[in-house]
Amino acid sequence: MYTLYYSPGSASMLVHLLLLEIGAPHELRRVDLDAGAQRDPAYLRLNPGGVVPTLIVDGAPRWETAALALLLAERHPEANLAPPPGSPARADYLQWMLYLANSLQPAFRWWFYPEAEGVAAEAVLAAARRRIEAAWDRLDAHLGAAGPYLLGAEVGAPDLYATMLMRWSRKMPRPATEWPHLAALAGRVKARPSWRRLYTIEGLTEWA
Amino acid sequence: MYTLYYSPGSASMLVHLLLLEIGAPHELRRVDLDAGAQRDPAYLRLNPGGVVPTLIVDGAPRWETAALALLLAERHPEANLAPPPGSPARADYLQWMLYLANSLQPAFRWWFYPEAEGVAAEAVLAAARRRIEAAWDRLDAHLGAAGPYLLGAEVGAPDLYATMLMRWSRKMPRPATEWPHLAALAGRVKARPSWRRLYTIEGLTEWA
Ligand SMILES: N[C@@H](CCC(=O)N[C@@H](CS)C(=O)NCC(=O)O)C(=O)O
Ligand SMILES: N[C@@H](CCC(=O)N[C@@H](CS)C(=O)NCC(=O)O)C(=O)O
Repeated sequence: MYTLYYSPGSASMLVHLLLLEIGAPHELRRVDLDAGAQRDPAYLRLNPGGVVPTLIVDGAPRWETAALALLLAERHPEANLAPPPGSPARADYLQWMLYLANSLQPAFRWWFYPEAEGVAAEAVLAAARRRIEAAWDRLDAHLGAAGPYLLGAEVGAPDLYATMLMRWSRKMPRPATEWPHLAALAGRVKARPSWRRLYTIEGLTEWA
Repeated sequence: MYTLYYSPGSASMLVHLLLLEIGAPHELRRVDLDAGAQRDPAYLRLNPGGVVPTLIVDGAPRWETAALALLLAERHPEANLAPPPGSPARADYLQWMLYLANSLQPAFRWWFYPEAEGVAAEAVLAAARRRIEAAWDRLDAHLGAAGPYLLGAEVGAPDLYATMLMRWSRKMPRPATEWPHLAALAGRVKARPSWRRLYTIEGLTEWA
């Protein structure tokens, strides 16, 4: 039994999606980010960074979205969300998971929280946008050459991760879905039962 | 046999350190970043992002520093650089590797390449510095409570990763070694034979 601390549509979405794909029993606890619940002392004891997601695993609080994704895929091999250790596709899997975690997701942090005002904020937003769009170029080219999924013929955790991040770009000047192979990938992931159930459970409506 | 494309002191340092720790046969190919060799067409075919490291694994080029670290630790379990899948410490290991990859390393990209000028660059640098120092606070507190290594009693890949990143802060207004538990960790890692050999091979002198 897992317990997920989440906020609708945030980074916790990847962990929630994976729990649904796996069919793992779990409880949900909503953290009201608008009300600042992520900074409640009780929550900070679970997650000293004051962010979602937190996942309770074997009774202990764990965090970092991509780490939780790697962990869930590893603990539930029967769900086929990741190529097993030792398989030829393993390096590819780790590479794309970490590309998303290291090069793409952090640029959104600067896009959503530029931490500056006026001309400085404009400069941060422009740089964040360049980095995000460079990642769409890269991912789209890879999907065109080796898709339709990031690891080829079969869906996996990297596709769910990429689609969550594409959703974050929906109000940007150039959303990810303007790249054709990314749009096709998003269409496939959004058609999955896990994505639809998550929309209902989290009460999401945009980008449906 | 692995082949590592590297540049002295850059992100490739973690992969080089791990190869030395493991004792895995490998060849080194230096990429002259100052001369722009990372943008040579032949290099871009190996690494479309035009960055180091690239590691040739079973004949195929692979990238993303943290992904390569996870992969090497997994392929060489006898080196004890990571707790095995299924062990209680596994979640902790993935969490710290991804904390470094997602929250800390990307902030250095903004510190070293603010992609703006004048007041805007100052704002980016100030924000990057706040994010980096918040990570030192977090890591230092964790080491104080549960150290001396990030996973407790034994050194592992997260400690090598953290020490590489600490080295990157050496010219910052407040280098990581001003945090006492981080300084102690750096001292331990820098005393390892792998670190000393890497310094000789890569020709590094600063922060010795
Ligand atoms: N490195 C963390 C970052 C998580 C994160 O930034 N979560 C955001 C929502 S997408 C959050 O909780 N923000 C609340 C806040 O910063 O106050 C991870 O990948 O899990
Ligand atoms: N996400 C990549 C980033 C690697 C990276 O930024 N490498 C830097 C050196 S630390 C680089 O090659 N820079 C050359 C350039 O940007 O032209 C990773 O973690 O491997």
